[in-house]
Amino acid sequence: MRLDRSTCTSRLVEADFGVLGTVDAEWGVHLVPVVFVVVGDRLAIPIDVVKSKSTTSLRRKANVADDPRASLLVDHRSGDWERLWWVRADLQASTPGDVPWREVLAESYPPYRRPESILDVMAFDIVELTGWTAS
Amino acid sequence: MRLDRSTCTSRLVEADFGVLGTVDAEWGVHLVPVVFVVVGDRLAIPIDVVKSKSTTSLRRKANVADDPRASLLVDHRSGDWERLWWVRADLQASTPGDVPWREVLAESYPPYRRPESILDVMAFDIVELTGWTAS
Repeated sequence: MRLDRSTCTSRLVEADFGVLGTVDAEWGVHLVPVVFVVVGDRLAIPIDVVKSKSTTSLRRKANVADDPRASLLVDHRSGDWERLWWVRADLQASTPGDVPWREVLAESYPPYRRPESILDVMAFDIVELTGWTAS
Repeated sequence: MRLDRSTCTSRLVEADFGVLGTVDAEWGVHLVPVVFVVVGDRLAIPIDVVKSKSTTSLRRKANVADDPRASLLVDHRSGDWERLWWVRADLQASTPGDVPWREVLAESYPPYRRPESILDVMAFDIVELTGWTAS
């Protein structure tokens, strides 16, 4: 059963973890788990100090530089399949603009309250929201 | 910290849920949560009766018909970020071959013990395995 847009939005806002997919020239799709925050119809993902040391992090940034299309999936998992649901946000990479993303991230995720823990922020416009629930 | 290949394999085999990413001509990336099974260096995803009614299911099938590259991410979530880990399997769509996928799926997931619950199976070769753990 489809979820309506306002339910998609509220479940996206409440979620802590998602999976980001970007377009990868070699592999087709690059997937990585992320934390994220939503403000209005925009969304941001931090690049933190730990992640920046791996090539994985650089790949997601290089990918959106080459192709700004991306997608974020939030899914609720349960052994009881009647309780499954998911929300997908199709995205377009954009500039951070005037949203204080680091402060928003720090409010949502205590590890980001140390300002130096966030190296960079990837910002996106939410182009489309789709959601589904089993019941 | 990178996970070695055997750890990646065992965590992938043990996982119940993952996120499948396929290459989408319009949106760049198409993400959907899936259940899956692994046999050797192959992996399969069921198309079940409920999912077949949505266009989402058709999209993942149409996408791999157009571009066989895909990726599956399994991630462990926790409020304690020291316990986070993920495994990514980069995939190439292939034919089901001689693996009895429906039986393997039924062994792993009780809802699939009714044979009519699985409409179709999407099979993939595992091309690359990558994994990361916070600690």
